Formats: sequence, structure tokens, C-alpha cells
Amino acid sequence: MSAPARLIGVGVGPGDPELMTLKALRALREADVVAHFAKAGNPSKARAIAAGHLRPGVAEVPLLYPVTTEIPRHEPAYCSEIAAFYDGCADTLAAHLDARRSVAVICEGDPLFYGSYMHLHVRLAARYPTEVIAGVTGMSGCWSAVGAPIAQGDDVFTVLPGTLPEDELERRLRDADAAVIMKLGRNLPKVRRALARTGHLVRAMYVERGTMKDAVVMRLADKADDCAPYFAIVLVPGWEGRS
Amino acid sequence: MSAPARLIGVGVGPGDPELMTLKALRALREADVVAHFAKAGNPSKARAIAAGHLRPGVAEVPLLYPVTTEIPRHEPAYCSEIAAFYDGCADTLAAHLDARRSVAVICEGDPLFYGSYMHLHVRLAARYPTEVIAGVTGMSGCWSAVGAPIAQGDDVFTVLPGTLPEDELERRLRDADAAVIMKLGRNLPKVRRALARTGHLVRAMYVERGTMKDAVVMRLADKADDCAPYFAIVLVPGWEGRS
Repeated sequence: MSAPARLIGVGVGPGDPELMTLKALRALREADVVAHFAKAGNPSKARAIAAGHLRPGVAEVPLLYPVTTEIPRHEPAYCSEIAAFYDGCADTLAAHLDARRSVAVICEGDPLFYGSYMHLHVRLAARYPTEVIAGVTGMSGCWSAVGAPIAQGDDVFTVLPGTLPEDELERRLRDADAAVIMKLGRNLPKVRRALARTGHLVRAMYVERGTMKDAVVMRLADKADDCAPYFAIVLVPGWEGRS
Repeated sequence: MSAPARLIGVGVGPGDPELMTLKALRALREADVVAHFAKAGNPSKARAIAAGHLRPGVAEVPLLYPVTTEIPRHEPAYCSEIAAFYDGCADTLAAHLDARRSVAVICEGDPLFYGSYMHLHVRLAARYPTEVIAGVTGMSGCWSAVGAPIAQGDDVFTVLPGTLPEDELERRLRDADAAVIMKLGRNLPKVRRALARTGHLVRAMYVERGTMKDAVVMRLADKADDCAPYFAIVLVPGWEGRS
């Protein structure tokens, strides 16, 4: 055991392993246990990003989401099943922390920005010494890959989930200087209509796997179909006619 | 000359040098010229962050903002003076690029998120091979230092400049699940009033120099005065009564 009991949320960035920070590398080098979320049957994205920096033989704790696709997301049954899952994950990590091990939870992007880590943080941070290591977010990775100046000066910048109702998306897009729309998947047709009606479609960029070698980047207006993975995003850069 | 002509916007993160990415380090190692913005008479923050990773003897190009405090920010004279300044900076870097040197412009935070780099990017990216290296933003550094889960699930997250009119701040705070307010300085009394009227003051956190050793972090409600540097920020975490 190389370090005292400590929970560390480690942001490993948006996908390109070179976008990991020096601090994340040090945390991986020093941790007794490395935990990562994944869907059962799928490799953890955070683990794939950090793979080259894990200590050989380090103890790994995969935290596997329950399969809940048969329960609608806003049903109380879904929420209670998910809450029970996070409770169980927190118990598993608490056992390691009680044994005075340091536990690094590796997270795609930034741990406290739309990440699963925060469900562990709110359950454990009051009971154990805790540190959070900021990471490059997925959206930063995307607008950098595109080379799109996203927000500047007195711009209001907004992150919108594509799951919002169409009129709500439209109202909020009208009200933002710059925006990022996440959680596309089957929400893309609705997002496209809201962008068109607010005049933003012309400057909207569609990005899949932003910082990976197989990235897909195009103007949304040029995208012929409405097939999009859930983690693709749309950028609406605020920069327009300025310099 | 170790690399072909190339403009590289390099995010060096929010302040802690350990929050630099491996990719930023490589860019600094490989660049012929390192440029950085600063106010005349003040050291560049980006340079201070990256100082330990500059090659000894590398050519440095300080880009010094003109002193324009005597001209109000929204006057045409201010805008044209600033535009002329960026034109001049772009010309300076273009001369290096024309001489087939690679030029790294180091930027606090992320280059395309409220940064000065984008003024060079829009002037040069169409003329020279250009790359942007995403960085950890100042706001990520701040919410990580505080340990505040900022946004989750279907939250709408908004970045607001404190320069907005008070009623506009209030309207937008009412409409956001989670928010970050930047550009505090003398806008803090106005920001505090807008937060109080929207019921967000109880959970608002005030952060100065988020990832530095001399960071100041407190509940805004506990801050006795309204003295704040321009680069302090307020976090309004979206996480509330969830787990």
C-alpha cells in the first residue's frame, strides 16, 4: 500500500491518451486500486484511455452498470435500481478505503461534469479524504479538434441535453450565444429541427469521437442521415462576424 | 528548426502546472517559438504555468495588450484598437511561420473557450497548418478544487459573464440548473443580488485562484465583502437533493 486511504476522482480527458494530465498520471502511479465504470459486456472507455499508464498488476475494480434498458429512465423503478447500484459501488470502494488503500476512480472527461463519479463522491467524500483531479472535457476535445472558437468575451455559453423537449431546446437555443448539445442518439432529428428554426443550423458542427483517430466531423447541415451515437455532440460556436 | 511551419494553440490548464496535458508538454518541447499574451508590465499567466517545461533558450514572443483602460470597452475606439493589436500579433507570428518555424501560443485554460488565442486562430488558421490542444478549463479547476459536482444527467449548464445587466443575470439564473459566473470584479454586488433573488445564493460557491496553493474558496453567502478580482468565479452546482 503506497499511499494512505484516499478517494481520488481522476479525469482522464476526452479520449486521446495524450490529453491526460501529469496529475492524472501521478494518481494512477500512486493508487493501490483503480476503479472504472462500464456497461456490462463493454470495455470501460476511461480504462481504455488510461491503459498505457496503469501499474502492472494494480488491483482493478470494474463497476458494471446494471442492464436497465427495459425500464423507462424516468420511472421510479429505474431511479431506485440505479441508486442501489451506486450504493453498492460506494460500499465496494469503502471496503478498500477502510483497509487503508488509496482508490483512484478514473473518469472520461472531467469527473464532476456530467460524470458517474459524482454519485460516488456524494456518498464517500464526507467519510474519507478525497481529491478530484480535473480533466479535459469531451466538449473541449471536440471544439479543439474542429478548430471552432466556441465562446468569447461576454458570450453566454450553454450546454443542452438533446433529451429536452423540442420547444424547450428551441427556446434555449434562441437565448444562447454559443451552445453544445449532448446526448444525441435518437434525439438528432429533433435537435436538427430546433437548430433550423433558430437559424443556428448553418453554423452547427456535428462531431463523433472528437479526439480519436476515427473522429467524424462535419457541418450538421451536410450530414445526410439522422443516425448518431448517443455520445456524439453538436457544437454551435458563438464566434460570428467578430475578430 | 525542429518541426515544419505550424501554428499550435496550446492549452496549459487552469493554473497548477501538474494539470498540463502530455500533449501540451510535447508541443512545448517541439516548438521553435513560444508566444504568450500578457498585460504590459505583468507576467504572462500562461508562461508562469508552463515555465518548467520551456526548452532552455527557446525563442519567446510576448504579445503585450495595449493599455486601453482610459477607453470604455464598448466604444468603437476600444474595439478598433484591440482589433489592430490582434492584427499586429498575427503579423508577428506569420513572419515566424513564413520562416518555417513552428509557433506554440500558450493559453491559460482551454485555447478556444473565452481565450485570446482565438483572435489569432481566426486570422491565421486558414493560411497555415494549425492545431489546437485542448486544456483543462479554469472552471473545471475550480469545481474540482471545491469538490462540487457541477452538472449531471439532463441538467442545463450555463456560463454567464458577470458583466450582464442585473435583470438579465437574474432571468438566466432562474432558467439554469447549474451555472458558472465569470468576470466578477466590481460586478460581484450585482451578481450576489441576482443569486439571492433567484434562491441560488445558499448553494453558490466563491472561488479565487482555484487550483493554486493560495486558493480562496468559500460559500458566497459567507463572504463578508464584495471585493473580488476579475478572474474570481462563482459556481452554482446543479446537484441538489439527488444522489
